[in-house]
Amino acid sequence: MTGSENGFMLRSIGVIHTPHPTREGAPIQPTGARGVRGQVVIDPDLRDGLDDLDGFSHIVLIYRLHLSRGYDLRVKPFLDTVKRGLFATRAPRRPNPIGISVVRLISIENNVLVVEDVDMVDGTPLLDIKPYMPDFDIPEGKTSTGWYERSQGDPQRMKADGRFL
Amino acid sequence: MTGSENGFMLRSIGVIHTPHPTREGAPIQPTGARGVRGQVVIDPDLRDGLDDLDGFSHIVLIYRLHLSRGYDLRVKPFLDTVKRGLFATRAPRRPNPIGISVVRLISIENNVLVVEDVDMVDGTPLLDIKPYMPDFDIPEGKTSTGWYERSQGDPQRMKADGRFL
Repeated sequence: MTGSENGFMLRSIGVIHTPHPTREGAPIQPTGARGVRGQVVIDPDLRDGLDDLDGFSHIVLIYRLHLSRGYDLRVKPFLDTVKRGLFATRAPRRPNPIGISVVRLISIENNVLVVEDVDMVDGTPLLDIKPYMPDFDIPEGKTSTGWYERSQGDPQRMKADGRFL
Repeated sequence: MTGSENGFMLRSIGVIHTPHPTREGAPIQPTGARGVRGQVVIDPDLRDGLDDLDGFSHIVLIYRLHLSRGYDLRVKPFLDTVKRGLFATRAPRRPNPIGISVVRLISIENNVLVVEDVDMVDGTPLLDIKPYMPDFDIPEGKTSTGWYERSQGDPQRMKADGRFL
């Protein structure tokens, strides 16, 4: 990692392979990709960092939304019919195009993870893996989800169209 | 964002202000920072992207772990007594030092968000904000958390020491 005043470099540490060749037609979230299997191939020199991960049922994949270019500050989400502030959506075109997805970990062999519920495009560059820990990742108390609560879209059926290409 | 074969640039889109001046003594996760209040100051030119975010009770902050340098592939987590594979931990020194925290959103005024449960160090560079959506962010079914399930550490009381500086 190198840093400057306001920018810094990340590097791909692996590749996520999925059955979704293009953004168009891909599920919009893991909830629309239940049971869809993919492989995460980690750079072999990072292999030792995967020790003990096999005890976790779920992992958080952090990845580069590598097909996204530029962004608009107000966008119409897949699940809504009116424009919303970009940071109130999960739209892929963002100032820093980083995606996060919680996926089910099936198995690990050497530097290859088999995972389920993959919603990302085949060939997505991996940036980080974190163990999913409900104690840390689920907030206490009641949650509210603004426009999404009132939307009619069904994330389990919705597929991406070309709006964010 | 600029890209090359294997690296790409991110930029800070704001700053997270918290009562934790240094990593040492800071809570290790939001669960150890319940009710601790902070401010997220977004770059003014991104202000319109915050529209509609105020309907959400919780947001995911994605940030640069800017004090972290280098990494080891096997580390002793704050909550355990033996070394674990880096990707099976939330340790801050990682190939790509990116942190994620779910925090409670209290209010938004112009380009300033007041949030609670902040575990990051004061001055942390913000990379992205996503709305926290249980439908997307909580997996279905039972979860298991490997070494963490069997550890004796209490993340609500544990504070960071110098091991990852």
